[in-house]
Parts: sequence; C-alpha cells; structure tokens
Amino acid sequence: MKFEKNYYSIRSNEVIFEKLEEEKEHIGYYRLPFENTDPIKEFASKNTKEDIVVLGIGGSSLGARAIYQFLRHKHDFSKRLFFLESTDPVDIRSQLEAINLENALFLVISKSGTTVETISILKYLSTRISLDHNNTVIISSKGSTLDSYAKENGLPFFFLAENVGGRFSVFSVVGLLPLALIGVDIDNMLRGAQKIYHSFFEKGKSYEELMEKARFIVENKYRFNINVLFSYSSALEGFNKWYVQLWAESLGKININGTRQALTPVGLIGPVDQHSFLQLIMEGKRDKTVTFIKVEDFEEEIFVPTKSPLSELDYLEGISFSKLIDMQADATIRSIAEQGDIPYDVITIDKVDEYNIAELIYSYELLVSIIGAFLQINTYDQPGVERGKILLKEMLTKSQ
Amino acid sequence: MKFEKNYYSIRSNEVIFEKLEEEKEHIGYYRLPFENTDPIKEFASKNTKEDIVVLGIGGSSLGARAIYQFLRHKHDFSKRLFFLESTDPVDIRSQLEAINLENALFLVISKSGTTVETISILKYLSTRISLDHNNTVIISSKGSTLDSYAKENGLPFFFLAENVGGRFSVFSVVGLLPLALIGVDIDNMLRGAQKIYHSFFEKGKSYEELMEKARFIVENKYRFNINVLFSYSSALEGFNKWYVQLWAESLGKININGTRQALTPVGLIGPVDQHSFLQLIMEGKRDKTVTFIKVEDFEEEIFVPTKSPLSELDYLEGISFSKLIDMQADATIRSIAEQGDIPYDVITIDKVDEYNIAELIYSYELLVSIIGAFLQINTYDQPGVERGKILLKEMLTKSQ
Repeated sequence: MKFEKNYYSIRSNEVIFEKLEEEKEHIGYYRLPFENTDPIKEFASKNTKEDIVVLGIGGSSLGARAIYQFLRHKHDFSKRLFFLESTDPVDIRSQLEAINLENALFLVISKSGTTVETISILKYLSTRISLDHNNTVIISSKGSTLDSYAKENGLPFFFLAENVGGRFSVFSVVGLLPLALIGVDIDNMLRGAQKIYHSFFEKGKSYEELMEKARFIVENKYRFNINVLFSYSSALEGFNKWYVQLWAESLGKININGTRQALTPVGLIGPVDQHSFLQLIMEGKRDKTVTFIKVEDFEEEIFVPTKSPLSELDYLEGISFSKLIDMQADATIRSIAEQGDIPYDVITIDKVDEYNIAELIYSYELLVSIIGAFLQINTYDQPGVERGKILLKEMLTKSQ
Repeated sequence: MKFEKNYYSIRSNEVIFEKLEEEKEHIGYYRLPFENTDPIKEFASKNTKEDIVVLGIGGSSLGARAIYQFLRHKHDFSKRLFFLESTDPVDIRSQLEAINLENALFLVISKSGTTVETISILKYLSTRISLDHNNTVIISSKGSTLDSYAKENGLPFFFLAENVGGRFSVFSVVGLLPLALIGVDIDNMLRGAQKIYHSFFEKGKSYEELMEKARFIVENKYRFNINVLFSYSSALEGFNKWYVQLWAESLGKININGTRQALTPVGLIGPVDQHSFLQLIMEGKRDKTVTFIKVEDFEEEIFVPTKSPLSELDYLEGISFSKLIDMQADATIRSIAEQGDIPYDVITIDKVDEYNIAELIYSYELLVSIIGAFLQINTYDQPGVERGKILLKEMLTKSQ
C-alpha cells in the first residue's frame, strides 16, 4: 500500500511551537530584545544635533515611526524625528524645508544598500549639505555598498544582521538608534518585548492567547479573509501602518501547496472610523475579523465641562475625554458583539509608554510568525516585490 | 401562468443612468458644483483670523482635509487649517497647543447637531476661550440644536441641506467654507466637478469609463471583494481616507435581496506601500481590484545629481524625482499587469491643483452612486452605525 497527497492539514499547536523554537536559532528577530544596547546608547549620548532624520522606507522606517508617533505627544522629546521615505518630490521638498539641515543627524538605513528611494534621496541630500562623519550614520548589511561608502568616508556604521528582516527589525539598531537619539528609554522598551518573549516561550498567557488567535484565523482564512485592526487612539496610526506591512508582506504568500493565501490587513482609528468604515463591518459581508486596541489610561485629564453654553448632549457633562473614548470603544465593541457572527478580540494597553507599545509590537511579530507557520509559507521573504524592482531598473537604464 | 422571484439580475446601464437622473432630483450632492458660492466667498474675504479650526468628524472633515492635504505643499497658504475630530484627549491637547486660540476661527460642523465628538470638543473649547460671533461659525441643518445655539448667541450660521449626506458634502459649505478661508479658489475647484458632471450626464468619456468600471466591480463583487486604491503621491493620503469612508459607508449595506454586500476599500500610498502591501497583491489570493492614481506633473524640479559621493545605482543619476516616482508607478503597474489575473486601472491627474482634485472626487462620488444603483442598496444612509450611538448614550446616562 502506498499513500501520496498534495494537501496538508493544519498542524497541532505543539508542532507550531516547535517550529518557532527552531526558528529562534536562525531567524534573527526573536532574540533582538536581549541584545546589548550599550553601543547605541553611547552613540546617542554623544549626539548634539537637534533634528534626527531617518532616510529609510518600509521596514527601515515604519517601526521607529510607529513608536515615535505613539509616544510623541505624551513625552516632551527635546529632539525632532523626521522620516524621508518617499520619492514624491513635493514631500521631499516640504520635509527638507522643515528640517534644520545644519543641525541635523542623518541616519541612512537600507539593509541591502540598494533601496532606490533611500539612495536617490541620499544622493539628492548630498547636493544640499555636506555629508560627513559629523552628521551621517549608516545602518546596513556588512559588505553592502553602503558599508563601503561608510568606510571610504569614515562614517559611523551600525550593521544589521543578515537574518533580521526589515519588517521585523524594530528592536534592532534600525529602530533603537533613532529612538535612543530622541530620548526614548530603549532598555525599558526592550523589557516590554522580553516580557512577551518569556510569556510565549514559557507557555504562559501569551502562548495561550496568540495560539488561539492564530489558529482561529488560519482555520477560517477563506471565510474571514480580512483582519481589521481598530485602534482607539490617534497615536496608534503609525502602529496600524507597521501592522499592515507586517501582516501583508509576511502572510501574502503562496504556500507549500501552491495556494495563494488570502489574509488582508486593514488599519482603522477610532472613534474617527466609526464615521467611516464601521457601517461596512456592521452590515457588509461577514468577511472580517476585528481586533480592537484600547488604551486603559491616557493620563490626560481633560473633561467635558459641567456647565457649557450648549445644552445639547448634557449627559456628556463632567466626563473625562479619556473615559469618553473608552466608552465609545466599548459601545462599538458591544454593537459588533450583538451581531453574533463577527469574530472580534480586544487588546488593552495599560498606558502610553515605550514598555507597553513594545509588548504590543512583539506580540504581533509572534502572532504573524505563528500564522505563517500554520499556513506553511515563508513568513520572512517578499519575492513578489522583486519583479517591479527589475522592471524599474530596466526602464531607468533604457531611458538614459 | 405566474412568476415570482426573490433575486434580481444586474440592470442595464441605461436603467442605472435613468436611476441617477432621477436621483439628481432629490439627492442633493449632484447639483452642488453649480451652487452660488458668493456668500461663502464674501464671508471668507472678511475673515482676519489666522488659524482656521474645523470641529467636525467623518463627512464633516474628510473632504476638506483631503483637498487641503493635496494642495498644501504646492500652494503657500497664508492660513493654517486644523481639524479637531477625535475625542482622544492626547490628540485634543496637542492640537490645541499648536493652535493660536486667540487668533483662530472655529467652524463647528455637524449635520445633526448631536455628533458626540464635535459637541464634546465644542463644550471643552468653551472652557478655554470665549466663543462668540467673532470667532465661531456654525454649519448644521436648519432646526438642529446647533441652529438654536447659533441663534441664541448671534453666531454666523450656514445651513447644510437635508438631502446632502456628510460623505457627499465636500462641495457644499462643509468643504467650501474652510477651503475658501485658507485661500483655495473654490470656483475653479467646482469647475473641475462640473466638467465631470457634464461628461457623465451628457454621456461623454466619464459615462463610458465609470459605467464600465462600476459594472465590472458589481459583476465580480464576490470574486474581487477588495478594491485597493494605490495613490502615487504622499499628498493623496487624505484623499485615500475620504475614499475609504465614501466606499465603505455607502456600499457596506444589505441590498433588496437581504444580501450583505462585500466591497471593502483599502487605501495605499506609493512608493511607500510597495514596501508593505504590494507583496500581498502580487502573491496573495486574487480577491482585489487595484486602481492606481498618478500625478502627471508635480511641477517640482528636483533631481538626483549626476555626480554624487555614492556610486551605487548610478543609473538614477540626472533623473528628476517627478519622473522617478512616475516610473516607479509604471514598474509596479507593469509587474501587476504581467500577472494577468489582477484587474487594475490607472487614473492620471494632470497636476496638483484644486481643479484636478475636484474632478477626481466628483468622479468617485458618481462611481459610488452607480455601484450603489447596480447593487440595489440605499447608497446614502448608514443604519449600521446607529446601534453604537444608542449604546453609548445608554452607557453614559447610566454612568451618571
């Protein structure tokens, strides 16, 4: 008797856990929260420049920006952080107008050293200001052309390990250096990630929660092909974008069966998107799972006054906005729960600090690794974007 | 013989066209581009305040913001425009810090006059600065509580017609007043919308294009349940958000058959999202149609220099960034075209001005009306969001 097949069934949680244990040995992001941050802190402590400017796109900017946007209105950072990502000329010009070029430190971040956006902006920048060891830092792979460029010009250089992918690099120097430079307590941040690491790999609460969530998503991947992240804080808009990249680029793959996977991420901000996308969740086709993110305590005491010139909505009077937005989230969650056929979960962040955002980010990295393992895809590559790069190079070479 | 049914087939283009002709008589947005703008321009010309602050959310802010964000880095507006939308206390506090309250004009925009976010922020604002006819304007329905509030306090008042829905209100006073106040040529803007109106209702190019697109989307609504808008300009981020609201809230409905509709919008920005979502479009399940938006001429002449300290990617040298981003879009479009099974279309905007963005916006409004007519839904209501509002009121009343 002989048995052949071209399908697979969903593996047990135990098999997936072992897969992640094994990945820990060669996929670099898992152990990033435990790396020595002294060189980064030392470099940051010596910096005197006021504006920190990241030249980087995708995985080289989204992580640091997510954390910066989350923290910036709560923490009085003495320095400003900018991201030059896009080749949009209007964007480049208007951002450079806002930056004090003479008093700026430029972090050039490209793992390959050949990212079109980053290199073209770097070239343009060199026409605007002299780039040297006083104002330019390179973060790239060892042996890349940016590495050579740094050596030739005596620029400070931090290398990014080969086995850390861009979208999983926020706890490497890619995220840590810009954040340390503006004054984020990066060690406390990494402690948040470490906590999740231990909770997962020691089979604590994170193991239970993430395994159940990943399994549900995979078992229902064709029925619920869209995952909506509904974040109740304007400061989480950068996190939403980071999540969209992580999810789309990691899980948008063809699996070992040759089957195109279907999971699509959508990032929303509450309460604003209650007035936009919510109608579609409530009455549209049941093709979405919804994850709510709430902030337990904004530590921001502003209130709707008890006496105001407008009598309308007097039941709002005396409430804090922190409580109000929380109740708006709860009302939306309850209205979705009442539907009965929309799967949802709620993640509550204790407060707006670097420890809590790191917990959230590391949890999502693990979640995506677990889903990828269940789907039997390569979570860590992005072969689908190579073709466009080749075509662009052809078009550019021809146009000369 | 007798024939009964509980299904419907997709109507002919002619029937849909007649439906829109009939809607023109009672759905207010169609004729907005032809309204008299003199009262708005007159009010704007008398204003001396430097900061224009919109208190409004959803349809009361997304349209004006889309146009403002599109134009702001090309046009040197002498005034700044702010949007107080969210009840997020960190957002409220940080925005109010940036606004010069003493020199600000507040536009309170709520069709119903009972929008929780807008009214609570208005109440809070009254504790920070005295609101009177010198600094406060009300835009609401006739007879709303905001109308009474305006009358009691002698505030300037513009009314929003009952038959203009929030998400279709950008060419009404809701969008025109804030934009006129910062110096946008609103008459030229409306001419862009008028052009599309004529082209569609006189069965010109817009009729052909929009009908074919809507028909394809409706005929394939279950196969391609996600519509991706891939905009190649950072300045179109606000437009993407406006599109998401228009699409999700108009089309996320139960139709006359009792069937939940499936069309989900996703907004992307190129080239940034080439490094994020593109992998999923290329290798994920074929559940997406993709619309690219390109800007023909950014009128921004900055170049990658011909001599630069970095030899890498020398084929970029001498190219303008305007040309580069255009080629990046073309390379991405071609890589998607090569797949053969991803439906896409490309919209090219001539340049960054109010006329062109209005053409785009009005085209999308018509497109959504056409799709809604094909789907046999009510495109103009949003019953799914009412339940959350009721629950919030209950929770707030109980908590007192």
